[in-house]
Amino acid sequence: MRIFLTTALASVLLLLAPMQATAAADEDGYDLWLRYKPLEHSAQTRLKAQAGSIVLTGKPSPTTQVAIDELQKGLAGMLGRAPAQAAKVADNALVLATAASLPELRAELATLGDEGYLLRRTRLQGHNVTLIAANSDVGLLYGSYAWLRAAAIGAAPEASSAPQLKLRVLNHWDNLDRHVERGYAGQSIWDWWALPDIKDRRYTDYARANASLGINGTVLNNVNSKPEVLTAPYIAKAAAVADVLRPYGIKVYLSARFSTPLELRETDTADPLSPAVQAWWKNKADEIYKAIPDFGGFLVKANSEGQPGPQDYHRNHADGANMLAAAVAPHKGIVMWRAFVYAHGTEKSTDRAKQAWDEFKPLDGTFAPNVLVQVKNGAIDFQPREPFHPLFGAMPKTPLMMEFQITKEYLGFSTDLAYLGTMFEETLKSDTKTAPQGRTVTQTLSGIAGVSNIGSDRNWTGSHFDQANWYAYGRMAWNPQASARAVAAEWAAQTFSPDPRVVAPVVEMMMSSRETVVDYMTPLGLHHMMGTSHHHGPAPWVDNLERPDWNPVYYHRAGRDGIGFDRTASGSNALAQYAPEIARQYADPRTTPEQLLLWFHHLPWDYQMPSGRTLWAELLGRYDKGVAETRELHARWMTLKPLIDARRHAEVEQRLTRQIDNAVLWRDACIAYFQSVSGLPLPPGVKAPPLPLEKYKALQYPYAPGRG
Amino acid sequence: MRIFLTTALASVLLLLAPMQATAAADEDGYDLWLRYKPLEHSAQTRLKAQAGSIVLTGKPSPTTQVAIDELQKGLAGMLGRAPAQAAKVADNALVLATAASLPELRAELATLGDEGYLLRRTRLQGHNVTLIAANSDVGLLYGSYAWLRAAAIGAAPEASSAPQLKLRVLNHWDNLDRHVERGYAGQSIWDWWALPDIKDRRYTDYARANASLGINGTVLNNVNSKPEVLTAPYIAKAAAVADVLRPYGIKVYLSARFSTPLELRETDTADPLSPAVQAWWKNKADEIYKAIPDFGGFLVKANSEGQPGPQDYHRNHADGANMLAAAVAPHKGIVMWRAFVYAHGTEKSTDRAKQAWDEFKPLDGTFAPNVLVQVKNGAIDFQPREPFHPLFGAMPKTPLMMEFQITKEYLGFSTDLAYLGTMFEETLKSDTKTAPQGRTVTQTLSGIAGVSNIGSDRNWTGSHFDQANWYAYGRMAWNPQASARAVAAEWAAQTFSPDPRVVAPVVEMMMSSRETVVDYMTPLGLHHMMGTSHHHGPAPWVDNLERPDWNPVYYHRAGRDGIGFDRTASGSNALAQYAPEIARQYADPRTTPEQLLLWFHHLPWDYQMPSGRTLWAELLGRYDKGVAETRELHARWMTLKPLIDARRHAEVEQRLTRQIDNAVLWRDACIAYFQSVSGLPLPPGVKAPPLPLEKYKALQYPYAPGRG
Repeated sequence: MRIFLTTALASVLLLLAPMQATAAADEDGYDLWLRYKPLEHSAQTRLKAQAGSIVLTGKPSPTTQVAIDELQKGLAGMLGRAPAQAAKVADNALVLATAASLPELRAELATLGDEGYLLRRTRLQGHNVTLIAANSDVGLLYGSYAWLRAAAIGAAPEASSAPQLKLRVLNHWDNLDRHVERGYAGQSIWDWWALPDIKDRRYTDYARANASLGINGTVLNNVNSKPEVLTAPYIAKAAAVADVLRPYGIKVYLSARFSTPLELRETDTADPLSPAVQAWWKNKADEIYKAIPDFGGFLVKANSEGQPGPQDYHRNHADGANMLAAAVAPHKGIVMWRAFVYAHGTEKSTDRAKQAWDEFKPLDGTFAPNVLVQVKNGAIDFQPREPFHPLFGAMPKTPLMMEFQITKEYLGFSTDLAYLGTMFEETLKSDTKTAPQGRTVTQTLSGIAGVSNIGSDRNWTGSHFDQANWYAYGRMAWNPQASARAVAAEWAAQTFSPDPRVVAPVVEMMMSSRETVVDYMTPLGLHHMMGTSHHHGPAPWVDNLERPDWNPVYYHRAGRDGIGFDRTASGSNALAQYAPEIARQYADPRTTPEQLLLWFHHLPWDYQMPSGRTLWAELLGRYDKGVAETRELHARWMTLKPLIDARRHAEVEQRLTRQIDNAVLWRDACIAYFQSVSGLPLPPGVKAPPLPLEKYKALQYPYAPGRG
Repeated sequence: MRIFLTTALASVLLLLAPMQATAAADEDGYDLWLRYKPLEHSAQTRLKAQAGSIVLTGKPSPTTQVAIDELQKGLAGMLGRAPAQAAKVADNALVLATAASLPELRAELATLGDEGYLLRRTRLQGHNVTLIAANSDVGLLYGSYAWLRAAAIGAAPEASSAPQLKLRVLNHWDNLDRHVERGYAGQSIWDWWALPDIKDRRYTDYARANASLGINGTVLNNVNSKPEVLTAPYIAKAAAVADVLRPYGIKVYLSARFSTPLELRETDTADPLSPAVQAWWKNKADEIYKAIPDFGGFLVKANSEGQPGPQDYHRNHADGANMLAAAVAPHKGIVMWRAFVYAHGTEKSTDRAKQAWDEFKPLDGTFAPNVLVQVKNGAIDFQPREPFHPLFGAMPKTPLMMEFQITKEYLGFSTDLAYLGTMFEETLKSDTKTAPQGRTVTQTLSGIAGVSNIGSDRNWTGSHFDQANWYAYGRMAWNPQASARAVAAEWAAQTFSPDPRVVAPVVEMMMSSRETVVDYMTPLGLHHMMGTSHHHGPAPWVDNLERPDWNPVYYHRAGRDGIGFDRTASGSNALAQYAPEIARQYADPRTTPEQLLLWFHHLPWDYQMPSGRTLWAELLGRYDKGVAETRELHARWMTLKPLIDARRHAEVEQRLTRQIDNAVLWRDACIAYFQSVSGLPLPPGVKAPPLPLEKYKALQYPYAPGRG
């Protein structure tokens, strides 16, 4: 990774003349960040001089054709007219060239790997050209998107770039009936019923959008998988999708249900050490690779939340993963094995936060080389804020993958605005303090997965701002060192307008938005206080679910004496799973980051916070701050009305209004509940919730979307 | 109803110069039949002379604003430039005027009712103008759409038109979780979760499309209703939708679950004669009308397929309907009470085809005046072909509504092409032979309902051709005398191109398409042979379901001796429910229409058909004909490739390919099954099914869309 758009972008944006003084035409969001709107005149002049024609020096392929089509589409939009493709290099040509035709750049290209690219103005065959160079056709495609991105926002393109993580995938939690578990943007885009004969145009546009970010794999179906997905009809359907995605450098993966052969009645066990089971998976892999020669491999959720797995046969996770890995290894396939497990340990004494580490850490070094262990960013479950998962840095002999959740299961669905770039950044840049020499979480990774927020809604993600989370995931998967702010600015400039009067306030809204959600939902390290099953709305009072660790009361442990989960040595000692330096620091509430305070400590209500307030007053203050901030988000958006097309402005505005209501509900219900537990009076200035606690408890959301 | 586009359209189309010699731009179908593409030059010249400006003579209203917006949008599209709205009548103005400002037309307008309109070139205030006149603002809106429709297809507009049926509604079988029962076009367009704060732009475009057809009501939720839809949060959501639809002349209705107050625990019974229950519904109606002053009323499915109803309390359908009718009567609301019932009578001797008549006919004259009984077109369940329902004409003292199913639950979902205009026409024009003087089915009606095929898919209906079924339903609801062919021509001209090289073959495809589906699914009066639950694919062998009348074998009764359901006096005598003249004619297979032969008769396999073939050979011949016709549909579509935009052409082509496979499957499976039953050899030239019967029986469709 060489130069990334950060301050560069901001300064260039300031140079752009104010645009869009008149009302912009309505947009529906389908074009995402690939809008390619006309540039203002001087930018057009500059760009024309860099792309008089388009020349491909090497052999054409479906992938180079995609690159050329995209360049022509982009330039047609931005300039009003697309340059023609030419056979010969001429002055001002935009040249796509692989290493073979660029002996003088071979050394530099060699540092960029299979997918990297370089972009520059240079001389080629006696002409001044704009060069997009790479070692592969997909590198040329990525370079083309990078060049177009810079052009669209008026920034200088990166000189060169290469991804740090080889594996950058989306996980679709999409069921075969098109219901999306934790999906808030309509149905699955994969119309399994219609496939393979009927291939929706969306598949192509999905591929474009992902390729523009550098995402190179997608798991089509839910980790809570079904056996049918590995039957011949569904393999044919997956193959039809793979055919569409292939030119865009995107491999198809499938979530495999561990008990598939047993449930299809083709074996009489799913024991990974059974030769019949091993043979079944080998044959199945052969069958899949016949239909999809570049099939990526399997994602597996095993022995977790009721899913079958190797432990059903007294085998361990490595036994299970390695058996599947052996089946796909001859085809260069991989297995992504999830570490999100809490299959046993229902007794109250166990801390769910510890379970993944307890089960997986001892297996380090026992996994086959083509197995990656996929670890959620935190140890509970995609909460608005969690400390990084203690497995990062703890399994040095095992390739690990990060699993982020792009869809906002716990951060307001597709109604509330929460830009996750800041959360991704917070986790990726966390210092694990593990050897060698204090690695960040990023440095412990071999791959990254994002649980998709994509659906059939016209704007793909339900809300326009949730497009930014897909975007940020993709950009940070490519470059985990990227700053969330720079990515937000890039996105806003492409999605709304490069006008700094738009970009600056939109970026400010985005940058504060996730902390706002934390404030009105689960401040100060609280977690897992949402409604049962659908996960909507506050429910800190729930204490009657089958498993203790499904209950919010298990997590916040609020009582007359105080609040918080003691994960120090005096409690569950989950802290001991972290590097000693972290464990030492977080053992004391005074040296624990305030934002994680109640994650690690159970503290009395009158505990003195650094602010000088009691914990009780601080907690209430955070809820009020969260509500106030949603009002500010709305007010700030309203000032942008003259600068954004009416349709998208109204659609965002409706959601921001809804978010205020949601924040007020969380604030009121949580304060009513915690007061009932603490028995403390509300400090002066804190408004009492308008309803009695029972009324909040009685609220029902019977048809909330996205159920599991 | 005055002049309808029939031969007029065909002849005008022939005069149009061939257009679209070059490839058309890709379209995604979202614009439906309201595409307003540029006309060719001479048509533009003619049109400009008719609409130099737009003048509204009366008081502006939200509805007149919609009319003016639509005229401007339409003319902008067709001419490249919209005429301005002007305050004063001038030469060549397009004038929207209600009766008040047109004393000389008052008598003529008086014949057109609340919703009719007249269109003409005339002199007004000393100027030659194009006049759109009506008694109401919604009449002006309907007239505007009619005028635009004629302009778009190059036809002369109707001189005047008024609907014969006052009530023209869509029934959405849409659940509150957005699943659409029998929906094959994505999710429900109603995003209940997001409402009322977030109002999807689609609601407005839905209103436009329906208003363009004259649809004036919509039942938002499934007849299999839930109690929650009548709680305050959902009333607020429905009100938000009603606010969007109101300017378009569309009233909102809700499906009510009969046991709502009991299930919400607000009464301790749902007995319609209980004063507490009556009071509950009265209060509920008051609450709804407060939020939706023009609320239409309730649709009720009671004591049918497990739904609760008055019979649970030993009351009859009239008791139940009249109780609800009393609640909405003060607000001028209505109750649409479905006659589709088969709650009891599981014993084999009863014919399900008889049950609605048996239950409802005796109640004629006992319903409150604001109750309409809604009767499906046939007595079984929306089969590819059924004789008209014997209740039409049998309840002279009760207002009846027709219930058509626009969504193709039994005619190939949204994959197979089946234009239903011919089916609607066949039913509506059927002669009931009932007094006075032989009324057609249409003449027995007071209203009409269509079970919607609309969903969240970009093109609304899953397949482009299924838009035609929405269109045909709406146009024939407005004018039940319309010819299916004329409606098809109108639709094709607006949807694809007015070029006769497009319209003529598309109309031919449409006109034959439903008979093709009948041929490869259920020829010669067969019915109800589809797969269990999802209703996909052939399953004539099913004989093991809980109720006898859920089994295909109950309906085809095929055995060694022959095939068909004897509904004459020697059988169930369902025939006796029809007028004597029909009963006499259909009592003899020789005088029974061939297309209904096995509906009314059980005949030996060697029965001699009019063709000279045996019934066995005729049956096989129909299946082969159905398959051959799907191949012809595909071949004919391929000839249109140069004349239709690539995207829509490909999308239709993929479905027509799938349809061939579906037809082959039905043909092969049904022939394999019927041969196993008849024990007869296949006649020469009939190809044996490629698989043994057991293989067809083993086919599974676990995630088929649209389940109930």
